[in-house]
Amino acid sequence: MNMKKLAAEAAVELVQDGMVVGLGTGSTAYWAIQKLGHRVKAGLRINAIATSSSSEELARQLEIPIVSFADIDHIDLTIDGADEADSKLTLVKGGGGALLREKIVAAASRIFYVVADESKLVSQLGAFPLPVEVIPFGADMTKRQIEKLGCGATIRMQAGKCYITDNGNYILDCEFGAIHDPERLHVQLNAIPGVVENGLFINMAHSVFVGYQDGSVRRMEL
Amino acid sequence: MNMKKLAAEAAVELVQDGMVVGLGTGSTAYWAIQKLGHRVKAGLRINAIATSSSSEELARQLEIPIVSFADIDHIDLTIDGADEADSKLTLVKGGGGALLREKIVAAASRIFYVVADESKLVSQLGAFPLPVEVIPFGADMTKRQIEKLGCGATIRMQAGKCYITDNGNYILDCEFGAIHDPERLHVQLNAIPGVVENGLFINMAHSVFVGYQDGSVRRMEL
Repeated sequence: MNMKKLAAEAAVELVQDGMVVGLGTGSTAYWAIQKLGHRVKAGLRINAIATSSSSEELARQLEIPIVSFADIDHIDLTIDGADEADSKLTLVKGGGGALLREKIVAAASRIFYVVADESKLVSQLGAFPLPVEVIPFGADMTKRQIEKLGCGATIRMQAGKCYITDNGNYILDCEFGAIHDPERLHVQLNAIPGVVENGLFINMAHSVFVGYQDGSVRRMEL
Repeated sequence: MNMKKLAAEAAVELVQDGMVVGLGTGSTAYWAIQKLGHRVKAGLRINAIATSSSSEELARQLEIPIVSFADIDHIDLTIDGADEADSKLTLVKGGGGALLREKIVAAASRIFYVVADESKLVSQLGAFPLPVEVIPFGADMTKRQIEKLGCGATIRMQAGKCYITDNGNYILDCEFGAIHDPERLHVQLNAIPGVVENGLFINMAHSVFVGYQDGSVRRMEL
């Protein structure tokens, strides 16, 4: 049973003609883009804006019309995955490295749907390391400032080098263990010079679509 | 009377042997670096770290030893200019476009001295447009989110193109008119996805050295 595919398809069913749709990044968003491609082929008329070059490329292959921010003044609906989601629909995102663009697109969206398999639902955020995007200049110093908040931080690597985001920055994966006060941590992290953005998405998701092993999909709302 | 030079030289007098010194950017920091060069030539032994490629180049010309963040674990003293300073030593910086690196260096410094001529002293911050560094992706959308906080924002241009910071980002110059609650505005701005950093420096400066038309220098402390 492909739980990610089930959840993604349930959310894509709600896309309507004429919408500007934000496309997420990652293994669950992949299935949303696939399904959106099928619907476009069947006649659905939308414009889409992507959160990463990989999602944009996939959308183009499926002939989903792509626009840029300069062409639009709002986004109707964004569908994206998450690494963790709690009962308040607070999310940890960024395992795929696209957290900043995902957050910019989600913040510009009237509706933000999250799609995930049941393993992403948690009672306490923080088991998944929190990704934090930082400026390369002074990154060692920024890392030390972040660690003062009570975590161990590791610069994400790829093929022996620092992983570089689409915005030219580094990602620090921060092991906080348990995040008891996400609002406070969000403000503290973003106040550190050198921190561009962090992977906490608070009061942003309108619904989380969860795919279960038994083939069902549950829609969580506040 | 060169008030900037007077203020800069007064601060540089306090640099001691063995220090790691942060070098600011702009027309007042220029005089600090010049004076530091004279002192190094006269035997002062320091290492310096620069907040911009232009300051680094000037320091190299003056044979001031330059180190990078990877070489050090702290900065003893940073000397930098400001566009505005109030009686609480809260600053607006970033007219020169280097606000992010200036803030990273200032935050990593045990002591942060600001040097300015008397025209930079204000009773109310905000007459100088507040520079905000933003990610190019979605910058139009980010601009609109910032404007909701009550300002008109303009993307800084240079020779007909968007000005690009040393970190590859844009600067929005935001006209708030008067900034009554800098702490709140700082948190609000940094919470917007796409905002990398803003030009408000709060609780960072230890002293502001002010050069006056009459040739005197006043040292402001809290």
